[in-house]
Formats: sequence, structure tokens, C-alpha cells
Amino acid sequence: MLSKVRIKYIQSLGQKKDRDAEDVFIAEGPKIVEEFLSSGNVKIKHIYATGQWIEKNGKRVQPVELTEVDPSELERISQLKTPNEVLAVVSKFKLPVTIDLEDRITLALDTIQDPGNMGTLIRIADWFGIKNIICSNDCADIYSSKVVQATMGSIARVNIIYTELESWLKKNTGVKKYAAALSGKPLPSFGKIKEGILIIGNESKGIHENILAIADEKITIQRIGEAESLNAAVSAGIILSHIAAN
Amino acid sequence: MLSKVRIKYIQSLGQKKDRDAEDVFIAEGPKIVEEFLSSGNVKIKHIYATGQWIEKNGKRVQPVELTEVDPSELERISQLKTPNEVLAVVSKFKLPVTIDLEDRITLALDTIQDPGNMGTLIRIADWFGIKNIICSNDCADIYSSKVVQATMGSIARVNIIYTELESWLKKNTGVKKYAAALSGKPLPSFGKIKEGILIIGNESKGIHENILAIADEKITIQRIGEAESLNAAVSAGIILSHIAAN
Repeated sequence: MLSKVRIKYIQSLGQKKDRDAEDVFIAEGPKIVEEFLSSGNVKIKHIYATGQWIEKNGKRVQPVELTEVDPSELERISQLKTPNEVLAVVSKFKLPVTIDLEDRITLALDTIQDPGNMGTLIRIADWFGIKNIICSNDCADIYSSKVVQATMGSIARVNIIYTELESWLKKNTGVKKYAAALSGKPLPSFGKIKEGILIIGNESKGIHENILAIADEKITIQRIGEAESLNAAVSAGIILSHIAAN
Repeated sequence: MLSKVRIKYIQSLGQKKDRDAEDVFIAEGPKIVEEFLSSGNVKIKHIYATGQWIEKNGKRVQPVELTEVDPSELERISQLKTPNEVLAVVSKFKLPVTIDLEDRITLALDTIQDPGNMGTLIRIADWFGIKNIICSNDCADIYSSKVVQATMGSIARVNIIYTELESWLKKNTGVKKYAAALSGKPLPSFGKIKEGILIIGNESKGIHENILAIADEKITIQRIGEAESLNAAVSAGIILSHIAAN
């Protein structure tokens, strides 16, 4: 049985400040936990799982602390509406000291606030082989439960760095910067892009003006119908499918 | 002040069976309500709004029943976590008797269950000029609050029909059917498509086999990195950005 203190500890990890202090986050559900178990990048500290999950997966988790919980305990520690067999407390990812921008596309996110969008963007980056995502400090926390879920495991394969975006972009003068914007050059006029930074803006306000001013090119997805805008993650997916090269 | 009966009535519209019985749905927030007010397609039956909203918009809503509510009343009738000035009870959209498939792309959705994805798909369709979406009967209800919000108003500009998808596809023999699938022909090998049905499948299981078997072509988005799959709405956006023609 889980102690009250333990339950409180796990629940506290729903808060960013407690995740930051402990340098861990929570991943839930068989799909993502099993993906993390088979990844070389991920350090799982503790797994809480139902007997059913342990029966299937117990042997794979030898080096990790494992506690069996009953469904009512899982419900108390879970951040999901429908808890799903297993919850893992995972160490935050180590980031490389330097980020290589050469010969690749890097994604820069300006104030992406919806956790679902944030997670979907990480999954899209992983699909298109993007290694690094630079986030403005006011983007949603990637270690929040909803973001982790929405990445479907991709969070373990992409480096994600929070920074003061304007100065970071200004510092990296050698790399061409492309902004997804409603009034730019049509997407089909761009070919494959071997090296560059693609900037995606906030869900309702787009890219901040000071950041848009730094962009060398603005890319616009052709509109045929009447919708006012496209979802930020959908826009990133569309642009990357055109410009990202094998 | 709102009567208890009125509050219960509005709250009941959170349930599909009550929306169906009353033939109405709820739209919330200034952005979508104002878009509905200026649309010729939308019949708003009743608006509940704060004094602040009425002061700004009262004149525009003359032919509609309008009730002022205070913030605590709005909170009771709202389905949002953060109620936002105005809630409208809206008549469900009338659908055309026949759906024209000629000279256009039609979207077919097989078991899209997440309301956010459903709404985003409607918004994408509207962006790319898709007039009609055919949904399998087990897709999320487009009149649920989360779907309506996620469409950002596009729900008023696209015809959305629920049907038994397999027999509907089989009946429409004259139109070429394209399925978004993980093992098909690469997307860049397709040019603009003037006429066709694009089938998008369930978030985790993809397109049902019996439906995939009806497709004339399978379209695959090239993967460069390692993510197992792309979000259903993102996939639809990427494919439409390639094949939809002005």
C-alpha cells in the first residue's frame, strides 16, 4: 500500500515547481512507459503499476524500482481522467551543451501555450527528423502530463531547450530564419531546405512582431477556403512536409 | 436571474441525446458567437451574455433572444473551464439533400474519436476549401462543446454528414478514393487532385481494414525521423496542402 507521503509526493509532480525541484516528471499508460523502457535515453526512477501490467512487463523493469498498486491507488496518483495500468516517475532529459544548427532544420516555438499543441509539435518534429526545438520561456512546460501524453514517446528523441527566443535568434546570425506567417511567400515557392530555423507562433496571436522582424523569409500556406487560420501544429506539419529533406 | 429550469435545460445540452432531441447545440466565447452572428448560415436561438458583452454587441443581436447573466450564472451554464462572456444556444445546421462529389475533394473520417482532432479537421477542411465531410457514425459528435470550440467557427461553413461509411463509400463508385495510410505511395508522387474522396482513420488504429480495402490509392507521408505516426488532423492537413488545388 502506498503511504500518504508517497501519494502526496507523486501528486505534487503535477506542479511545474515541484517537477523542477525534483528534476523528474510523470509518464502514464502502457504505450509511453514501454517506449521509455526500451529507449536508451530515458532514466525511469520508479514505476507504479497494477498487477496485470507487472505480470506482462515485470521482467523488463529489473533495474527500476517497481511498486504494485491497486486501481484505487493508481487513481489517486494519476493525472489522467482514466488511469491506465502504469505510472512512471522519470528523470528529466539531459540536454547537450551545444546545439548544432548546421545542415539541419531546427524548430523555434514562440509562445505555444496549449499543451496538446506542444506535444503534437514535438511528435511532428520527431517524424520529420528535427533534432532540436528551441522554445520561448513562455511556452507550455514539456514535462506537464498533457504534453508528455501528446508526444506519444517522441519527447525522448528530441532536444527541447527553453530560452529567451529573441536574443537566441539574434545571436545565431549564420543560419537563415523562416517564419510561418499569414502574409508571406507561398509555401510551394520554397524547395527543400537543408539548413534553417523554422519559427512557429502562438495559437491565436501568431509570432511576436519583434521576432517576426528577425526572420529572413515568411512562409505562407496557401488558403483555398475561408478558415481564418490553421492550428499551429498543423501549420508546422504542413511546412515541414514541404521543406524537410531526407 | 436565470430560473433553475432554464439552467438545467442549458446544462442538459452538454449531452448528445438532449442536443439531438432539441436539435440545438451550444457555442461559447465572443470569437465564435460573433462569427456566427455575422454568418448567413447560422440560426442562433438564444444568447446569454454578461453586461459587458451586451454593451459591445447588443445591437447586432436584435432578432435573437438575449438574456443578461452575471458571471456566476454564466459559470453555471458554461461547459468551459473558464467561461468567456457569452454563451449561445444555436440550431443545428441544415444539411443539403444531396452531396455533390464532382470536381472537388471530399473528406471521409473513419472513427475520429478525439473532439479536439474532430474540430481541427473541420477547420483544416474549411481552410482548404473542402465543402463536405462524411463521418462514420462512431466519430465524435461535432455538436459537442469541445468540437465546436476547436473548429474556430469553421463548423458553419462545412457540411458534415454522419453515415455508415463503408456502404457510403461502396455506393459512390464513380469517385476515386484515397486513403491516408502508413504503407502506401509517397505523397510527393501525387499531383493536385481535382476530384476524390480522402479517407482519414482513427487516432490510434488508423483506417478499418474493410474501408482500406475500398480505397483506390494509399497515400503515405514520408517519414524522416522516428515517430511511430502523425496525429490524424496533422496528416490530413499535410495531404490536403499537397493535393488540394485552387
